[in-house]
Amino acid sequence: MGEAKSGLQLRTLLKKSGELELSLVDVPTPEPADDEVVVRVEASPINPSDLGLLIGPADMSTAQVSGTKASPVITAKMPEAAMRMMGGRFDQSLPIGNEGAGVVIKTGASDAAKALMGKTVSMIGGAMYSQFRTMKVRDVMELPAGTTPADGASWFVNPLTALGMTETMRRENHKALVHTAAASNLGQMLNKICLKDGIGLVNIVRSKEQADILHKIGAKHVVDSSAASFMDDLTGALVETGATIAFDAIGGGKLAGQILTAMEIAANKTAKEYSRYGSNVFKQVYIYGSLDNRPTELSRAFGLTWSVSGWLLTPFLQKIGPADIGRLRQRVASELKTTFASHYTKVVSLQETLDLANIAVYGKRSTGEKFLINPSKGG
Amino acid sequence: MGEAKSGLQLRTLLKKSGELELSLVDVPTPEPADDEVVVRVEASPINPSDLGLLIGPADMSTAQVSGTKASPVITAKMPEAAMRMMGGRFDQSLPIGNEGAGVVIKTGASDAAKALMGKTVSMIGGAMYSQFRTMKVRDVMELPAGTTPADGASWFVNPLTALGMTETMRRENHKALVHTAAASNLGQMLNKICLKDGIGLVNIVRSKEQADILHKIGAKHVVDSSAASFMDDLTGALVETGATIAFDAIGGGKLAGQILTAMEIAANKTAKEYSRYGSNVFKQVYIYGSLDNRPTELSRAFGLTWSVSGWLLTPFLQKIGPADIGRLRQRVASELKTTFASHYTKVVSLQETLDLANIAVYGKRSTGEKFLINPSKGG
Repeated sequence: MGEAKSGLQLRTLLKKSGELELSLVDVPTPEPADDEVVVRVEASPINPSDLGLLIGPADMSTAQVSGTKASPVITAKMPEAAMRMMGGRFDQSLPIGNEGAGVVIKTGASDAAKALMGKTVSMIGGAMYSQFRTMKVRDVMELPAGTTPADGASWFVNPLTALGMTETMRRENHKALVHTAAASNLGQMLNKICLKDGIGLVNIVRSKEQADILHKIGAKHVVDSSAASFMDDLTGALVETGATIAFDAIGGGKLAGQILTAMEIAANKTAKEYSRYGSNVFKQVYIYGSLDNRPTELSRAFGLTWSVSGWLLTPFLQKIGPADIGRLRQRVASELKTTFASHYTKVVSLQETLDLANIAVYGKRSTGEKFLINPSKGG
Repeated sequence: MGEAKSGLQLRTLLKKSGELELSLVDVPTPEPADDEVVVRVEASPINPSDLGLLIGPADMSTAQVSGTKASPVITAKMPEAAMRMMGGRFDQSLPIGNEGAGVVIKTGASDAAKALMGKTVSMIGGAMYSQFRTMKVRDVMELPAGTTPADGASWFVNPLTALGMTETMRRENHKALVHTAAASNLGQMLNKICLKDGIGLVNIVRSKEQADILHKIGAKHVVDSSAASFMDDLTGALVETGATIAFDAIGGGKLAGQILTAMEIAANKTAKEYSRYGSNVFKQVYIYGSLDNRPTELSRAFGLTWSVSGWLLTPFLQKIGPADIGRLRQRVASELKTTFASHYTKVVSLQETLDLANIAVYGKRSTGEKFLINPSKGG
């Protein structure tokens, strides 16, 4: 295994003192058991869900660099209010990176493991911001010929989240859906899924530039929350599509409540009788992200038949079970370079991931800015 | 039927111009069909749900009186923002009063109807702020001997709402519950139910006086949201009871979010591993009232396994179906003077209901202030 006996791994450590520390540590690569393979990680995206663990609500204006160029260390202050909810991670050096892809460089003795030697595979299971990962065969997926690790790095979180939205819509008896921060990589995937499957989708974006991105890929309903006519535009799109469920990546501010209000106005346009309790159409907003950290503000001008809930991929997958998960994974594999293609603005090494100038960009969680880490790239 | 050929009925009318008008109109009493009875209404409570239709968000500081003493008319302005959601009721003169009780003074020809002659009965079905109501036999419930109309007036909305809460708790797999504005008539009923059924109940009140009311009737967990130690007190009570579902009558402000935050802290006290997404304990707040009209403010410091939803009695009853409704009604009838006893601060005639001094009191929706209308009482 030569140079793969150990490799660098990115760690995040929140000290009880309130100091967040990001660093690279050299960790031994476990020898593969019979049903395991060693993968040289070559691509792993920085998803918002990774950022939550990597940086979270730390105040990066206080960030300091120390260490060396080959092994930089970043420290920053975690605000006191945020510390209260984080007791569970104090003083633990945690690896990061939900998903990734790479090349199998060593295998265990089983036939299934040996068959993967030299193959490009996708992986799920954490600690992907590492140079090497020893994985069980069942936790990797062989990629079709001609697929690079970069093509396959974002094979799980975004694709299954997007598919999870349309699956949830169907299972909970809604006929169309709303999505916010809709020009994101995830939002573009969702548009491709909905166009292909004939599902009505109302895209909410925050600027004309984002609207243009979606129109270019064929989106039918795009409304801009920065426009003066936003509520009317949204209501019109809801009447046209009949959408009564929304997935909201923003979380903070008035948007979730505005969506429910517009759904209620749309429902009342077809109601026959006045009810003091509002329409009897059930309206659901799932908050699955927190691009805006402010409180969610619900004006409750939408009757009493509504729900605002958290939504998270893992419990959703647990609920639908292995057979349906397999069906969704299969679809992702076969549409990886079309429906589920991701776009990155920059590819960085592990060391470059800890560059303050880069953190300032990917830490903003802006739509259209997405970084890919290549742990095998020289710093 | 003599004087019962017609009777006064209280009406609420919202004009397209934005003027709300409350008045009494003389309406003919329909002759009873075979399966119907005519009831002289003697008691009907003013519930928050009735106030929503009667006055709603109208600005009562603009109220004017006209008409005569025997037939007063109140007019007031409806704020423009509120008008937008009320298009469905413009220019319709609507009767009010969800529930009530009275004495059967005439019956149809069927045996079931004739058997009720002279009996005291409870009723559900609207327009109870009327001197006479012609009702189907199946929509009235004969009250046990010795029960007055005042005893039986609040037999439906509060008792079934309180029972609906413990039923919902069980059906959604929670083991204990939280209730806000907990010193209300409804809150006291809920305490009696939970004490009797051995269910853990965390009562949230807004003053020491309200806490005293509940301690006096045997409540075990009472926390005061006006105390500096509120969050700690609440978390402690949640740890002790294991409550993960709350019913909130307040709606506006930070309370719903505080409850979820305290539930999350309580859940994490027993969690073994840190999760960046928070605990996997599902936390539910149902908003069933709006004592505070301000927006609901959710800080979302409680992971992603949560839901805040509207809750309303009618859809709940539709969901559980006739057999279970019958079971709950039976329990109410047999515990009407104990568990489900209501207390009123004042009994008013229909004319007195339209007295501005009275409206100023019952319109406040204060805990501990509850009016009973007796439409058969002289003005």
